[in-house]
Amino acid sequence: MLNKDMTLCISLSARPSNNGTRFHNHLYEALELNWIYKAFAPTDLANAIAGVRGLGIRGCAISMPYKEDVIALVDRMDASATAIDSVNTIVNDDGVLVAYNTDYSAIAQLIERNGLDPACSVLLRGSGGMAKATAAAFRDAGFTAVTIVARNEDLGRALAAQYGFGWQADAAGLEADILVNVTPLGMAGGPDEHALSFEDAAITASSVVFDVVALPAETPLVKAGRTAGKTVITGAEVATLQALEQFVLYTGIRPSAEQVRAAEEYMRAQ
Amino acid sequence: MLNKDMTLCISLSARPSNNGTRFHNHLYEALELNWIYKAFAPTDLANAIAGVRGLGIRGCAISMPYKEDVIALVDRMDASATAIDSVNTIVNDDGVLVAYNTDYSAIAQLIERNGLDPACSVLLRGSGGMAKATAAAFRDAGFTAVTIVARNEDLGRALAAQYGFGWQADAAGLEADILVNVTPLGMAGGPDEHALSFEDAAITASSVVFDVVALPAETPLVKAGRTAGKTVITGAEVATLQALEQFVLYTGIRPSAEQVRAAEEYMRAQ
Repeated sequence: MLNKDMTLCISLSARPSNNGTRFHNHLYEALELNWIYKAFAPTDLANAIAGVRGLGIRGCAISMPYKEDVIALVDRMDASATAIDSVNTIVNDDGVLVAYNTDYSAIAQLIERNGLDPACSVLLRGSGGMAKATAAAFRDAGFTAVTIVARNEDLGRALAAQYGFGWQADAAGLEADILVNVTPLGMAGGPDEHALSFEDAAITASSVVFDVVALPAETPLVKAGRTAGKTVITGAEVATLQALEQFVLYTGIRPSAEQVRAAEEYMRAQ
Repeated sequence: MLNKDMTLCISLSARPSNNGTRFHNHLYEALELNWIYKAFAPTDLANAIAGVRGLGIRGCAISMPYKEDVIALVDRMDASATAIDSVNTIVNDDGVLVAYNTDYSAIAQLIERNGLDPACSVLLRGSGGMAKATAAAFRDAGFTAVTIVARNEDLGRALAAQYGFGWQADAAGLEADILVNVTPLGMAGGPDEHALSFEDAAITASSVVFDVVALPAETPLVKAGRTAGKTVITGAEVATLQALEQFVLYTGIRPSAEQVRAAEEYMRAQ
């Protein structure tokens, strides 16, 4: 049962999912923390952030479309957020709001954990906020032979220029060691749900397939990569890892792998 | 388990108790409402109220010391709040913050329910915010023979003048049909925990004893009134009734007497 002393963490998003609410609350319960988590669709971002201050809300996840607008409302930017001028996490340290980007940190960790070699060539499809986080993580891991593939020439060229990478409008005929999808291609419920974000020939020629799309866990690209026996990194891994990093930033506690797996399963079992 | 769609109600108080959190959450559960309630000690009142707006928080109880300061932060004042220039409840109606005072309404209801006769004389001890709510409720019920008893002459005289009542510094030797205590005399944990707020002779001469002090449920005055066979009205009744009125304002649902009794019992069983 709820009590007055519970520490509150929240998320702000125009269209909240239940993922954060389920993931964090499951871990609070497993770790016997007197905390609660709830998603909000704010009516006004500035007032919502004022509320984080005024109510002493400990942590606040920031999702679409607030990741850039919120920068003007925080007190301090961590390097993970300045790296991509985008915030997905705010920690309230005794009234000082510090902004982080755990998407960036999660992708950086996955590059390292999977031992991806900076000498490899990379095709990176996408030009939105998450593509920026991905490009920055590859750049900061030492990758230089990266080509941004984006139909929107302005956004694609701008992203490529920002990180010193090349740009192509179309993936047709292109090949690389590492294929990374950061577009809605293959996303559950989207118009391109069944689309494969890279050609079969490109998948065959690659050694690593990385789909940042989190839902479904098994996108067409992930399935094709597994079938072809490639190293596969999934968007579900990114989503869990970024939520876990938020949990650690808020609570100062790192749950065990088993506890994280249980929270992840509970999150998905909706 | 918590989910993203829950409607949140809160309280703002410098020193929150668990009463509201337990009372409201128990009723939400009994009525199968997808709502949660949590008390907050705000770091800044204006930011907290901005948060009520920005996060779309449905209801907000206001306790000490914010009942007057919050007036400047709401959009509309209900008659119950303007009657005493004091707010203990805010309802967020699609972004419009409407302020109420359910302490005033609760005391007005108890005067009516117990059939107190406006022709009776009243001694009212106290000069704080709750004394104001009590004085206004008696005045609006048609009582005129009311004497405010308050050691603080400035506050006491001002309160008496506002409602057209008399003032006395000391209750010694005074008698009336209705005795009302709105001071901390007899309050659990206070310096005057065991103090009886009216003399034995006054209690004997009275017909009604009304102690607005809510904790403990059985104050020395309540006990003395019961022993003397008087009509007794307790602060616990005021507290439950005002919380119930908040619940009705927030949810639009009036729970059954049995449901209220169960929530009240759960609230007290701490």
